[in-house]
Amino acid sequence: MIIWTDRRGKRMEAPRQPTRRVRQSTTKVDIAGFTPELLPYLGQAAYFQLGMFENLALAISTAPDLTAKEELSAAAGRALAKHQGLVAEIRRRGGEPAEVMAGFSSRLDAFREQTAGADWHELLLSCYLAGGFLDDFFIRLSDGLPGDVGPRVAHLLGQDAGTDVFVTHLKAAIGADPALGSHLALWGRRLVGDTLLVARSALPMEGITADESRIEPVFTELIAAHTRRMDGLGLTA
Amino acid sequence: MIIWTDRRGKRMEAPRQPTRRVRQSTTKVDIAGFTPELLPYLGQAAYFQLGMFENLALAISTAPDLTAKEELSAAAGRALAKHQGLVAEIRRRGGEPAEVMAGFSSRLDAFREQTAGADWHELLLSCYLAGGFLDDFFIRLSDGLPGDVGPRVAHLLGQDAGTDVFVTHLKAAIGADPALGSHLALWGRRLVGDTLLVARSALPMEGITADESRIEPVFTELIAAHTRRMDGLGLTA
Repeated sequence: MIIWTDRRGKRMEAPRQPTRRVRQSTTKVDIAGFTPELLPYLGQAAYFQLGMFENLALAISTAPDLTAKEELSAAAGRALAKHQGLVAEIRRRGGEPAEVMAGFSSRLDAFREQTAGADWHELLLSCYLAGGFLDDFFIRLSDGLPGDVGPRVAHLLGQDAGTDVFVTHLKAAIGADPALGSHLALWGRRLVGDTLLVARSALPMEGITADESRIEPVFTELIAAHTRRMDGLGLTA
Repeated sequence: MIIWTDRRGKRMEAPRQPTRRVRQSTTKVDIAGFTPELLPYLGQAAYFQLGMFENLALAISTAPDLTAKEELSAAAGRALAKHQGLVAEIRRRGGEPAEVMAGFSSRLDAFREQTAGADWHELLLSCYLAGGFLDDFFIRLSDGLPGDVGPRVAHLLGQDAGTDVFVTHLKAAIGADPALGSHLALWGRRLVGDTLLVARSALPMEGITADESRIEPVFTELIAAHTRRMDGLGLTA
């Protein structure tokens, strides 16, 4: 954990641009050594999206009004579509989705539990921050996938995540209650720590230990995007 | 409530055929007087599907294994697609979905709470029985909608509900534990009572009180389909 904490100081150097452009303008990191094998990659990305879907379903159930419920149902539908798209890729390769996902379920279940939050606003911030971070992370890793599956997965995961609902409701709540803002800023900082850990644990060990410094720029980008999300809500990252 | 209980004796007279065929072969009931106005119809059908989706999401979260999780996620996706299709119909008519659904939320929330069950098997049986019953019910009422919206809604709601997952898991669990079978048979009987009440309350009062006997054949059909679902699981209705 310490290594990521130390590196957080660098995150502000990244230019304030939309995530996609930042990724393109950064010196290309050869990600291939860090991308897991295809089926394990698809399995963990698919299981992560299923967890996002479950979080969004929980947010729907606990939403304070029908408009929020309705907006969140669209976001849940998109997470489910991402999950199902990844499951289709697993089947296309003759994999059994439940088997392929099984190795990642306990780690990702624990992550979901740690980041579910104590109330609706914390949950919403988790969906926005952890969801945004790990979508970007899996898109980034997809560069190292063989054949044409990488671009296809990147397209699937890069689809409009319907994040307006998070931003709208969080900004309104923070605007109405500055104490909530401080509270959520703390929560956001905790989330990025847990999210970095789960992202790091998704990488094959041998790649990481062999050349730790090569993966660093990828995390710098991802943290910069996280900081922009926090800033957009008026929260100090 | 008594009126429905009394009528349950008639349910066995209906031929054992798939629901759709039964509906076509029954003497046509003029449903028009019983169908609510278009927007209230769409609002309650949409909110019901959202509740089904929430129940399925809960079933996913509490599923005992990844295969069940994965199968249920497909069923949840279908419920969400039905909800979104109905919401699209509301918008097409200039309605604001949250407003149109608002009048039905407390009744349907209470219904969902009553029928959620105490464990995964009870919840699965609710999704299967209450979901099947009310899908059929709203399809039946759609005959009375104006213009081309009726057939469109019937098509949307009649799409494969992905009920295999319910039947497979419930049959396996009941086969392994006869006591669970007796328990779920009781639960199924309670469910049909609550479901009939919520269906009845979805009908405009004036239509019902004016000519109660005219709606009876519709409920007879719906209960026959319910009994077939129970029988298919080896449960006595």
